[in-house]
Order: sequence, then structure tokens, then C-alpha cells
Amino acid sequence: MANSKFEYVRNFETDDRCLPNTWIVVRVDGRGFHKFSEKHEFAKPNDKRSLDLMGKAAGRVMTEFKEICLAYGQSDEFSFVFKRDMDLHKRRASKLMTSVASIFTSAFVFHWPQFFDIPLKYPPSFDGRVVLYPSTQNLRDYLSWRQADCHINNLYNTAFWTLVLKGNLTNAEVISLKVL
Amino acid sequence: MANSKFEYVRNFETDDRCLPNTWIVVRVDGRGFHKFSEKHEFAKPNDKRSLDLMGKAAGRVMTEFKEICLAYGQSDEFSFVFKRDMDLHKRRASKLMTSVASIFTSAFVFHWPQFFDIPLKYPPSFDGRVVLYPSTQNLRDYLSWRQADCHINNLYNTAFWTLVLKGNLTNAEVISLKVL
Amino acid sequence: MANSKFEYVRNFETDDRCLPNTWIVVRVDGRGFHKFSEKHEFAKPNDKRSLDLMGKAAGRVMTEFKEICLAYGQSDEFSFVFKRDMDLHKRRASKLMTSVASIFTSAFVFHWPQFFDIPLKYPPSFDGRVVLYPSTQNLRDYLSWRQADCHINNLYNTAFWTLVLKGNLTNAEVISLKVL
Amino acid sequence: MANSKFEYVRNFETDDRCLPNTWIVVRVDGRGFHKFSEKHEFAKPNDKRSLDLMGKAAGRVMTEFKEICLAYGQSDEFSFVFKRDMDLHKRRASKLMTSVASIFTSAFVFHWPQFFDIPLKYPPSFDGRVVLYPSTQNLRDYLSWRQADCHINNLYNTAFWTLVLKGNLTNAEVISLKVL
Repeated sequence: MANSKFEYVRNFETDDRCLPNTWIVVRVDGRGFHKFSEKHEFAKPNDKRSLDLMGKAAGRVMTEFKEICLAYGQSDEFSFVFKRDMDLHKRRASKLMTSVASIFTSAFVFHWPQFFDIPLKYPPSFDGRVVLYPSTQNLRDYLSWRQADCHINNLYNTAFWTLVLKGNLTNAEVISLKVL
Repeated sequence: MANSKFEYVRNFETDDRCLPNTWIVVRVDGRGFHKFSEKHEFAKPNDKRSLDLMGKAAGRVMTEFKEICLAYGQSDEFSFVFKRDMDLHKRRASKLMTSVASIFTSAFVFHWPQFFDIPLKYPPSFDGRVVLYPSTQNLRDYLSWRQADCHINNLYNTAFWTLVLKGNLTNAEVISLKVL
Repeated sequence: MANSKFEYVRNFETDDRCLPNTWIVVRVDGRGFHKFSEKHEFAKPNDKRSLDLMGKAAGRVMTEFKEICLAYGQSDEFSFVFKRDMDLHKRRASKLMTSVASIFTSAFVFHWPQFFDIPLKYPPSFDGRVVLYPSTQNLRDYLSWRQADCHINNLYNTAFWTLVLKGNLTNAEVISLKVL
Repeated sequence: MANSKFEYVRNFETDDRCLPNTWIVVRVDGRGFHKFSEKHEFAKPNDKRSLDLMGKAAGRVMTEFKEICLAYGQSDEFSFVFKRDMDLHKRRASKLMTSVASIFTSAFVFHWPQFFDIPLKYPPSFDGRVVLYPSTQNLRDYLSWRQADCHINNLYNTAFWTLVLKGNLTNAEVISLKVL
């Protein structure tokens, strides 16, 4: 190509390779899913259709990236663990996190009609991040952290919505109970 | 929350704020779009439906991020320029590039039926990256670079497909001409 | 070399090039200079010998790096500004900041006897950092910031030590005045 | 302090904390030591005075940083290994590498007269870098790499200088032997 005059701007791109021999975790999170779940009338405390769709989208990510050895999801987030010694995309953080976020989103929208009767009202999205864990114990603790978070949130939501749905209390009344 | 034992893993997340007072460009690129365009029988050299859909998806990104002041696209890529002094998401590179890649992808899949008669065969995806440009001249040169790239590729593709479609040559024969 | 078995560890080194077309500032700061100035009986509020030696050391840094266009010092710190378009050491931040910190330190110790009658009691040291400024206004404001800092500290120290040395107050009495 | 107008430039400083739970290695290297060793007439192939002075300087670094658990040196370089779980200076890479480079340099110049009869002709300097190793095996391999490098260079230099000093060959003649 002859466009050398402008091509110097390429040098402004930085190298963001992940440290070798570390566990690379990419976690995606729903953007504005509080509003999204209301607009699409998600069941409370847990919407099985949504959780199944999240699982389906995660499966698509794992199909495209054989280098992912484990995935764990809850609510509107999903964590993907890449094998410690993998070298996909030269371990470039940008490439890994944007690809995962994009594939996950794409599959979520693509497979929506298989799980929901109502159509999508607007396109949902997920952001992502990369975190490195040097030891297997660190990775295990990361997963335990997400699992504990899941358990605590689920316990809270189950109690909250039971009081609202079966106890005939309003949201505000449950919050004022201060028991939770 | 009581999950303090595992929460230390949070400290492994790094701060990746973009340098203040620089132009932040997020560029998204189609992943595997050569195959994708064949599977969905894109017209050659340019498929108007696809280009219009790309524009629609870019519009969605700009609607969600008022901090983007300019977008430029060609083929299966799109560049988004954030205002120099913006402070969205504390300028964290991860957040910006994954959000843009995800919104773009989501809108691309969501609006597909408005532009194509045939259904999507599988979920397409885009990766993304962040590049910083310190001066307005650098940013201008970046856009000139993408524009020159667009022009050169378009010229090549137009000539190539004219020879194939109207000159009755095979792909291999055109390549062997060595004129291009 | 035949040591290929271990050489893979080289890949753990990261690329830390500074963004092109930005002003690179390396600032060095004395480590533990409060104690150092006491041990070497620096005159208060300002020790001319020490300031002259700082200037001498800065001069040495500028002699070795022609790419530095400006230096500004006060107290136990010195800032070095590299030309915006320079490409020394491929603009690698590690190389630039450690070299500057090391040369500065070396010259400070080397030239000590030219400025002080008493010998050094132990080896002093300086740490360093790299900061990038995208615009000339930002760089100017950086220098104004250091200058304002210098002025404020100097005003305080001059008043403080005048009260101690000429007003016959103790350090504690001056502090208790609460005027400063 | 009242200098708020300019203080915004502080935000241009980036956070460069090293990933937790990794071995931090800081390696310092002599700058221009080929010339330096000639000017100061170092003995060939190894100058005991210089090696002893390097060891002395490394000792000083280890005295100031109790967090360093191991150091290994050869020729004009020295590697310092920080304990995996240490939190000195919040693990900021800039602070660690510049401090080590500066202390090492300072001690090298300060203790020079204890090891050399001739005075320093000009101030020597060392650059530095930080490398992270996630596993103990990686760290061990790093040290093996430096050790193998030391051995190979030493073997070469010993043979080379024996031919020059005892075989009465010129430097050029030894190189032309092509045996080495």
C-alpha cells in the first residue's frame, strides 16, 4: 500500500500482552440490566429464560474459543477462564476481552427468540474486563468470590421477593423491615 | 457483604485509564467477515445492505455515548472518536472498548432483519481496540489513514469484481493478471 | 548462544513505550532527604551548596541526553523534559526513568567533594517517575505547578527558619504559632 | 496548598502497580561499561576489584530493601528478587526500579575508593527494568538463564584473553580464528 504518509499513526497503538503463565479471566457484565430486566418483564427473583439464554451465549463463546477451559455465570455476568499457557491472539488483552464481549452479546441477541416469547425491545449490551491470576489458588479464590457473591445476592433476592410476592408487602415496606 | 476471605482477588484488577487530554479512538473490526460475507451472499464488491446496517449499528453506539463526536466506517470496521476532554467511565480503556464493541455487535444483530431478507445463519462478532492520539493533527492523520485504506481497497475490489463479473474471468485468472 | 531452554523467560518482559508525540517528563526526587540534610548539616532554609550540586547533577543528565530540552529543579527534586518527537531508547519508559535517576545520582555523589567540605556519610539516592503531557499547555501547567510548589515551600521555610534562627523560638514554638 | 489551578496535571500520572502474588525482579545493567572498563583499565577477562565493588553495591541495595530475598550478579549487571507477597511502595514498578537503580549507582560511586586505587574519571550509571514472574519455576528459570549467560560469556572471555595475553595474538587475530 502506498499510504505511507499517514500510516505513522499506527505507532500509537500499544502492546498490551498479558503476562505469560498466568490465568487470564475475562468477565462480562450486563450494561443497564436493571432497566433491561424490567422492560422485558423478567420473573423475580430469578428468570429461568434469561439464565438459560446467558448459558447459551456462554456456550457460544466457548465454542469459538477452545482455549477457554472454564466458565462461571450468575445474574447478568459471566467469567471465562483461559488456559494458563495459551497463546491465542498473542495474549493481547484488548483482542481477548472485546472478542469475548462481542461474541457473548451477539449470541445473546441471536438466540433470544429461542428463550423468550416477547421480542427484544432494544439491543442489550455487556462490557468486559481482563484480570490475571498468577496462581491456581488465586484463580480458585476468584471463582469462590463470584460464587459467594452469587449466593449472597440470591439469598437476599429470594427473601425479598417472597415477602413482596407472597407476603403482600410493597418493595418499600420490605426495605423498611431492616431485617435483610 | 461477608465474603472478605476471597475478595482480595479484586486487587488483581489493574487501572487502565487513558491519558487525559488525548483523543480516544475505539475501532471495531469484523471477526471472520470474509467467511461471514460468503455465507450470507454479500453482493460484490460492495453490499449496500451490509454497509447500511454497519451505519445503523454505529448510530446506536453514538446514541448511547454522547461523548463520541465522530465516527468513520468502511468495509467491516468502524472508528469512534471520543471527545478529548471527556471523563466517561473515568476513561478506563477496558470499559470503553468492550462497551463499544458490544453495543455495535448487539445493534448489528438486532437490526439485521431490517436490512436483509435472509435470516442470520450464526451470530457475527467484532473485536475492538483503543488508540490514543495526543494532537488534533494526529487524529486527522488517523482518519486520513483509514480513508486512504478505504479508497485503495475499494479501487482494488471494484476492478477485481468487474473483471470477474463482467469480464468472465475466474478469481484465479484475475489474480494471475498481476496488473492489480 | 545455546541457552534456549531458559531463554523463554525473556517473554515476560513487557513493552512500555511512551505514547508518541507527547512531552515526556522524568522527575527525580530525593529518598529520605529530610534525614540526609540533617546528617550533613544543611543550612536552613536553603543550603546553597546542595542546590548548586543538584544543578551540577542535572547538567550531567542533560549532557548525556541531548534529547532533554529543559530541566527545572527545587529542593531535592528535578524535572527533565524530553523533546516531544524524540525516539531515544524507543521511548521506553523504564529505560528513560532509570537512566535519568541513575545518572543524576551518580553525578550527585561524584561531584559532592566539589561543593561540600565534609565527606558523604552514606550514599544518597533518588527515585524517579515518567509522566506524559499531550499538549504544550499541559507541560507549561506542569512546570507552573512545580514552580508554585517551590514558591509556597520556600515562603514557608524562610518564615519558619527566620523565626527560629533570628527570633530565638524553638521549632515547636513556631509550629504552635499557627500563623504559618 | 493554594495551587489548585495547575495541580490537575497530577492526573496525568499513571498507576503502574505490579500484579500481586508474582515475583518482582529488578535488573540493573551498566550503561556504556565497555568504554568505562577501558578508561579505568579493568583487568581482563575479569576485574576482581570491579566484581567486588558490584557486590558491595548490591549489598547496599539489600540493606535498604529488606523485601529483597535474593540477588544475583555477573559482569556489569545485577538482578534483585523481591518477595512474592511484599507490598513495598504499593508494588509500584516506577518506584521500585528507579530506587534500586539509584541506590546501586550511589553505592558504586561512594565505595569506589575502597576498591580502586585510581580515582573515577567520570560518573558511571546503570539502567534498570522490572520483570514479573508468576511461578517459582519461572523465577528459577530466570536465574538459570542469567547463570548460563554468565557461564558462556565467561568461557568466551577467558579463552579470548588467554590467547591475547599469553598467546601473544592481537584481538583481531583471535577473532579471525573462528574457533570461538
